[in-house]
Amino acid sequence: MNQIITISREFGSGGRELGKRLAETMGLAYYDYEIIKGIADKSGLALAYVNSIVEHHMTEYYPIRIGRSFTVVNKPVTETAVFKAQSELIKELAEKEGGVFIGRCADYILREKRPVRIMIYADLKSRLLRCREKAKSGERLSDEEMRRQIIAVDKRRSRYYEQYTGQKWGVKENFDLCINTSGVKIKEMIPGLVEYMRIFEN
Amino acid sequence: MNQIITISREFGSGGRELGKRLAETMGLAYYDYEIIKGIADKSGLALAYVNSIVEHHMTEYYPIRIGRSFTVVNKPVTETAVFKAQSELIKELAEKEGGVFIGRCADYILREKRPVRIMIYADLKSRLLRCREKAKSGERLSDEEMRRQIIAVDKRRSRYYEQYTGQKWGVKENFDLCINTSGVKIKEMIPGLVEYMRIFEN
Repeated sequence: MNQIITISREFGSGGRELGKRLAETMGLAYYDYEIIKGIADKSGLALAYVNSIVEHHMTEYYPIRIGRSFTVVNKPVTETAVFKAQSELIKELAEKEGGVFIGRCADYILREKRPVRIMIYADLKSRLLRCREKAKSGERLSDEEMRRQIIAVDKRRSRYYEQYTGQKWGVKENFDLCINTSGVKIKEMIPGLVEYMRIFEN
Repeated sequence: MNQIITISREFGSGGRELGKRLAETMGLAYYDYEIIKGIADKSGLALAYVNSIVEHHMTEYYPIRIGRSFTVVNKPVTETAVFKAQSELIKELAEKEGGVFIGRCADYILREKRPVRIMIYADLKSRLLRCREKAKSGERLSDEEMRRQIIAVDKRRSRYYEQYTGQKWGVKENFDLCINTSGVKIKEMIPGLVEYMRIFEN
């Protein structure tokens, strides 16, 4: 079976870039936004809705319509359905050919397959800098607005993760390796990491 | 200047072995018990006393004699003197030729030199196993006694670290890399880590 690597990451820490480069260099499949699309297909829910739950964890803005009235009673059921579809899909993909999985509780969902669990984090200054570099040219958030966005995204990720795993998000004990990307070029980390991953091969 | 690497470690996590192997492979100096001896020389305090403070953090068992009476009033002064001597020595050694420093708040003491700060940890099962392997043949602690010893040592380390650095011990944000050694052979980690250390060279 091919290696399974899960990447949990703080917003703006470069975890996505690291995962992508790692997958490319190791010749592994890379699963990120593909998962959202797959869940939508699997669950029959609208892509935008699945995205809002899995990617942005913004379920509070999506009351469910039952008959003529909006209600929140059924919300957890839908959320749970999404999480179930997500779990099944991630398991299937991992089973098929392994790969690098970004976020989406994959570390927890795949725990029985003993994936290599990596956590990527960085100080706020570095995260602001990375977000600034990646921001679309039309985007003109102030540093303070961006800082607030970073904190808000992580808060949602943390809440979502804890709700579905019962584990605290980002705690080092739940990972095999925690990497601080502050002031470091992601690209330069790859050769050492690829070599390090060999210890998990067997 | 040669590279400076500090290793903080949970008791029984193999941090010392990892540090020693890393230093050997990278051709760096290795500082562990040598620091205790150096502090004793520097401070004029007895080796056993320095050891009890820096290594075992057991100052509570060593009241200070002043004239005819024992008192705890001066204890913090002596502790502080030891920490001062320790800080000076660690800075001198790092300045001279860099190296790998095990524990003893070196990550904090050397913060202005921007060392590579590594944290080594493992689950309790792995730590019990490592302690068992390293235990002297005459030592017959039960698993429960060993478990209690591990927890007690880390509690002392944590208390000592927090007292002198004002930082929480073992928090991932204070490290560049946190490595979980559960079920992994330390020896096999070295090639990847040595490669990874290159990103901090400049």
